[in-house]
This record gives sequence, C-alpha cells and structure tokens, in this order.
Amino acid sequence: MAAPLKISRKAVLPQGFTASGVASGIKSGGKLDLGLLVSDRATTCAATFTTNKVKAAPVRLSARNLKAGDLRAVVVNSGNANACNGQRGAADARAMAKSAAEALELDARQMFVCSTGIIGVPLPVDCVSDHAGAAAGKLRTNGFAEFSRAIMTSDKVNKVASVTATIGGKKVTISGAAKGAGMICPNMATLLVFITTDAVVDEAFLQGATRNAVDQSFNSITVDGDMSTNDTVLVMANGAVGNRRIRSGAAGKEFQAALSALMLDLAQRIVRDGEGATKFVTIEVRGAASDRDACKIGQAVANSALVKCSWNGSDPNWGRVIHAIGYAGARVDESKVDIYFNGHCGAKSGVAATTPISRLKQAVAKKEFVVTIDLNLGKGSRSIYTSDLSVEYVDYNRLEYALKIQGR
Amino acid sequence: MAAPLKISRKAVLPQGFTASGVASGIKSGGKLDLGLLVSDRATTCAATFTTNKVKAAPVRLSARNLKAGDLRAVVVNSGNANACNGQRGAADARAMAKSAAEALELDARQMFVCSTGIIGVPLPVDCVSDHAGAAAGKLRTNGFAEFSRAIMTSDKVNKVASVTATIGGKKVTISGAAKGAGMICPNMATLLVFITTDAVVDEAFLQGATRNAVDQSFNSITVDGDMSTNDTVLVMANGAVGNRRIRSGAAGKEFQAALSALMLDLAQRIVRDGEGATKFVTIEVRGAASDRDACKIGQAVANSALVKCSWNGSDPNWGRVIHAIGYAGARVDESKVDIYFNGHCGAKSGVAATTPISRLKQAVAKKEFVVTIDLNLGKGSRSIYTSDLSVEYVDYNRLEYALKIQGR
Repeated sequence: MAAPLKISRKAVLPQGFTASGVASGIKSGGKLDLGLLVSDRATTCAATFTTNKVKAAPVRLSARNLKAGDLRAVVVNSGNANACNGQRGAADARAMAKSAAEALELDARQMFVCSTGIIGVPLPVDCVSDHAGAAAGKLRTNGFAEFSRAIMTSDKVNKVASVTATIGGKKVTISGAAKGAGMICPNMATLLVFITTDAVVDEAFLQGATRNAVDQSFNSITVDGDMSTNDTVLVMANGAVGNRRIRSGAAGKEFQAALSALMLDLAQRIVRDGEGATKFVTIEVRGAASDRDACKIGQAVANSALVKCSWNGSDPNWGRVIHAIGYAGARVDESKVDIYFNGHCGAKSGVAATTPISRLKQAVAKKEFVVTIDLNLGKGSRSIYTSDLSVEYVDYNRLEYALKIQGR
Repeated sequence: MAAPLKISRKAVLPQGFTASGVASGIKSGGKLDLGLLVSDRATTCAATFTTNKVKAAPVRLSARNLKAGDLRAVVVNSGNANACNGQRGAADARAMAKSAAEALELDARQMFVCSTGIIGVPLPVDCVSDHAGAAAGKLRTNGFAEFSRAIMTSDKVNKVASVTATIGGKKVTISGAAKGAGMICPNMATLLVFITTDAVVDEAFLQGATRNAVDQSFNSITVDGDMSTNDTVLVMANGAVGNRRIRSGAAGKEFQAALSALMLDLAQRIVRDGEGATKFVTIEVRGAASDRDACKIGQAVANSALVKCSWNGSDPNWGRVIHAIGYAGARVDESKVDIYFNGHCGAKSGVAATTPISRLKQAVAKKEFVVTIDLNLGKGSRSIYTSDLSVEYVDYNRLEYALKIQGR
C-alpha cells in the first residue's frame, strides 16, 4: 500500500509544463487577467463541462478542440465570461485561440479556451490578441502561481495544489489550479479547473478517472445553488516521466486516488473561498435508500437559504435541516431521521434530542463543522461541501451588470 | 358575462361563519396566537397540504378529519409548528382538536387543526386547552380580522380578502385569510390559508376548483425556495345562501373565477410581505415548449440567489436570468431567448439588446416590476411571483432555534 497522499499547496508544475499570467486590460487596475498553460509535448486529455443549457462560446469551442484530440495549451481570461454574446462571442473565442496559438507557434485547434467573469457583455478580444505574445514570453516552469492568479474573479485567494505519487516505480506529479467563488453548484459550477500531470495515462482511463474524481469533488460542492455557463475541468497528461502507461490495476488505483485527493482539496477550497462565506460545512448523508437519494438530500440541505442563514448565525436549527430533507425528493421516513452537529445529536428519530443546546451551539459556532444526517433506511451515502449565506454574499451580489456597462 | 371581480381587503365573513383570535401564551408579549373559525352548519370542504415528506402532526390529523367528511371548525395556533415532535406532537394535535371541540360543543373529528411557527420544539398545548373556551366566547361574525392576526408568524401585516359574485341569481361571498412570509416555495409553502364561502358547492367540483386555483396562486409563488412542513389551504363552503348547487357550467366558471382571483390576491400579498422583501417581481414565462417547462424556468429564475440579489440592487442583470434559465431542466435554445424588464428588452435572441442601460435600470429600480422571458419555442406559459433577496432576509433568519430554547 502506498503512503497516505500529501497534498501540497505549492504552485509546482509537472515536468514538461510551463505557465504564465499577464494583465491584458480586461480587468481594470492592472490586475492579472490572461493566463497560459502549455505542454512542451503532445498530451492525453480529459475534461468535463457545465451541463447548463446556456453555454459560453469558449466552452463550445474547447469541447470541439478536445474532441479533435491534439491539445497542447490552455488560454484563459478572467473578467469576462464571453457567454451570451451570440455570433460575436463565437468569433471572439476563435480569435482568442488563434492569437494564443500564433504566439505559441501552435495550431488554433490545439488550444483549450476558457473565459470567466460577467455574462452577456462582449469580450474585449483585442486585449487578448495584444497581450498573447507577452504571456507567451513570460512562460516559466515556475509560472503556475501567476497563472492561478490570472484566472481569479471574485476569489479572495488563488487556489493551487500539487500531489506526487510513485506509480510503477516512477515519481508522478499532478498539479491543479482552480477558481470560483460564486455561481457554484453541483453539476459543475463557475469554476475553472486546470490539472496537469507528467504521467503517461491511457485516454479512456483518464476520462473515467476524471469523471469519478469530479463527481466526488466539484460536483459535491455548492455555494449558492447557481450553476454557471462556463464551468470546465481539464486534465492534461503529457507523459514526461515516461512511466508505463496507466490504464488499470494497482497503477490505475494509485493514480485515481491521487487525482481524487487533489480535486477534493481544490473543490473544498472553492467553498472556503465562497462569496461571503464565513463557515465551511460538510454535510455527511448516510443510511439513505440509495447514493442518489443521499446526494439529493445533501444538496437540498446545502442549498436551503434558511438552513444557510441559520449556520451564519451559529444556530443549530435542525428543524430547518429536516424540512429541507423532506422536500429533497428522496425516500424519507421522518421518524427515523437522526441529525448530528459535529457528532452531537440534534435530532433523534425525527424529534429533538436531549443534547444540551449549549453543546449544539458550540458545534455550529465553529468555522468548520460537520452535519451528519442518518436516514436509517439503507446504505446510500454522500458528502456535500458548502458554506453559509451571509449578509456579505447579498451585498457582494447586488450590483454587477449596471456597473460594468455604465457607458451604454 | 359577469362584471369584473373586485377583491375587497375587508375582513368580511360569508353568512353562517364566525371567527376569533386570542393570546394563549404560546407567543410572548400577549400577542394573538390562537384562532377559531367556525361554521354554524355542516360544510363541504376541500384542502391541499404540503408535499414535504416531513409533515407536521396537525397536517396529518387534519387530512384524516377532512376525509371523515364532517368539518365544522378550524383551530389554529401560531408560534409553534408542532412539527417533528413525534408521538407527543400527534397527541398534542389531538388534544388541541379535543379542547377546541369541547369549547364549541362539537366532536373532535369535526375540527381542522393547524399550527405554524418553529419546527422541532414541543407545542405548549396547555396554552391551547386553557384558552380554547375564551376563543369560543369571542366568536363573532366580525372576528375575521382578529383571526387573521392570530395566525401570523413573521408576517408584517395580516392578509385577508373577500370577493362577492352573483351566481345563479344569489349573491355569494368568498373570504380568505392567509399567513406566510418565509419558507415560501411552490408546491405549498409555510402558508396557512383559510377560505370560507356561503355558497352551496358540490364536493368534487370544489376539490377541482381548489386545485386549479392553488396551482395558479400559492403554487406559483416563492420567497426562498424552502417548502415547509405545515402548508395548508382549506376551503369551507357552508351553503348558507341556499343557491342551486354549483357543480359545472356557467355557475362553475363564475365560482372558479372568484375563487382563483381571491387566492391569487392572497398569494401575491404573501410575496409582498416576504421576509426581507423589498421588491415584488412577476416572472412571465412564455413561448416555452410546454406549460411544465415554463413553470420550471420561472421557478429556477425566481429561486436563484444571484438573480434575487441583483434585483435587490436594482441591477438589470439579464445574464444571471439566462444562466438560471439554462439550468432549469427545460428545453432551451439560448439563441432564441428574449428577456424584458417591464417591457424594455434586456436581451434579444440570447445576446444583449440595444436598450440603453439607464432605461433597464429604471425598470428594475421600481418596487414592482415584470420580467418577461420569451423562449420562442412553443406555447407554454406560466407566471411566477417572487421577491428579492436582501440583507434583511439573512439578518432575520440567522437566529431562531437557539433563542427559542435557551432554557434547555
């Protein structure tokens, strides 16, 4: 058995990758807003995209280029989502790919394009074409921190992580950068996640491993229940370490474990950095009739405005938790439901437990706590990660569009 | 054709009904918290209840008594939902029916019992039994205003309405009282609605008419997307005016129109009185592939935290509206979506319209406005009524449980 995986928060890139970030002028105040992430050789890639039926232009373009099968680099801008811009948006995404490809001496079809920011405002694509060369000139093996800052929007902190594992006798590195703080909801959220590895990985295996890891990480978080138009998780493997191709068996299990641990770390940090978030709450659902039911219940509780407000006030209001359980659309027998706050029983068999209220309050007053929901019906389980709903969230999200297009 | 229906906000009761409200001590500070609504003769009744799988004890009891078919009176308390109290909750609901029935010289099975307030705290049922006699002694034909105040929780105003219609040559009155401000979401919300009429109405017809009217009113509103454990709409017809039994035809249409108009008025006032609400927003969805799709889209937009925050800030952020349309689970072609604010086009064919932003801002700055969403796909339509998400909502809902049970 391998040693327990240690996730490092250092912005290390696997072999054969370089990255950079520059200020292109899409954001005001000289903030970094254009990033490049490049492999020096061919890659095997897997990606998942938003399931929102309204998709940003770069999402559509990147899905096509991923299919074409020869991705080499990522170009990403923050400050504008290039979503809901019609034909112009599609043309701008293509122009973004083209100018980055030219600067990198690649073909436009080898580019993976991402945008994040306001919806429905045309992308100032000249900013990208004017600065793609500068971004290419700044590419460094230690440029990942800069890249991770260039993709931030309402994020307060940049989020990078790295993990190494010895697989088949070779030291393999997997590194990731993630952004996202609002419009965060299961089934892919305004989050962009870029993961690179120097391992040699079979393509079909990589797709499956990515889907598994995304399901338990980015599809298990919610800040506000709002699924975005731009969500993307990309995993690029360039095989620089020359290990025996990972496709199954012990090597597959080790790679899956490392990838899953990395994604879970990044996903949880997105919740911790959620807009206005003051608490990080893990909702552990168990004893559900099925895993699917457990997921529905976890999401209903995590997205309930009333539940989230109570957490903000450190109020161990299990009545609101059970009311959300009841409307989740899952099998529920209220006389069997147990609810715990950090292990202290708030409700037993659907009614108030005898735990002193002071103990429950202490649990919920913590910055991080676990709400355990036991349905006592079956073996279905799921963990969902979420934040509270604060006055700051509302304040932050009251104004955006009018400010951005005051000129019109 | 009958004259247009005029909804009166006066607390008038139909013939043969009396009502009262008293302070029983469930709420502190001598606030009204126990109400009675009584018919002096046999009634025909219809009701809809919460679809939450966690149901309060009085909901279960009232559903049984409704089925037994001889309802004569309503007893309702505010300040405690008597939900999630297990066997004790069931016994307390029965005791509440029994003490009210004794005071009214009725059988306990003739009582319709409702509770509203905090979940998971045992009902101080002695308050009810000690004050049922006083409530019975105060029953008056002009007691409906007092009754409507006795059922309030976080409501800022009491909500009553009355409508008269001449049906088959007889003047028929329909009156209603509604409460609810939080935990308000389609498919029945923490709302209690009591409607009385002196018309003679066929039971099966009344059930259908109630379902239709609830669908377009109380099931078309949402404050916070949280479906409660106690929602109940009751319609009691006592036939005091002696009209020819209403069961179909012109009389049926007239009765349906009056009942629907009354419920819509009460439902909209629940939204206007929503916790922390500063805006009243009508979402008109049209051109959807089906009415069901239109409903899904209206609800997704109405329940989006980000959309609601933008309204709070008077920000005409149509990008957030379209992003919610995209995850509603309905058929959507983003290149066909038009979005209007009070008739001013914000987005045309899925991209920003040319309307000056100042005009869009003016529309959304109003206390009441209409967001029209045209999918341009088919003939499905639906109107949903909702409010914004404010700092006040969060502040109001941060603390509840711990305060209520500090003693433990």
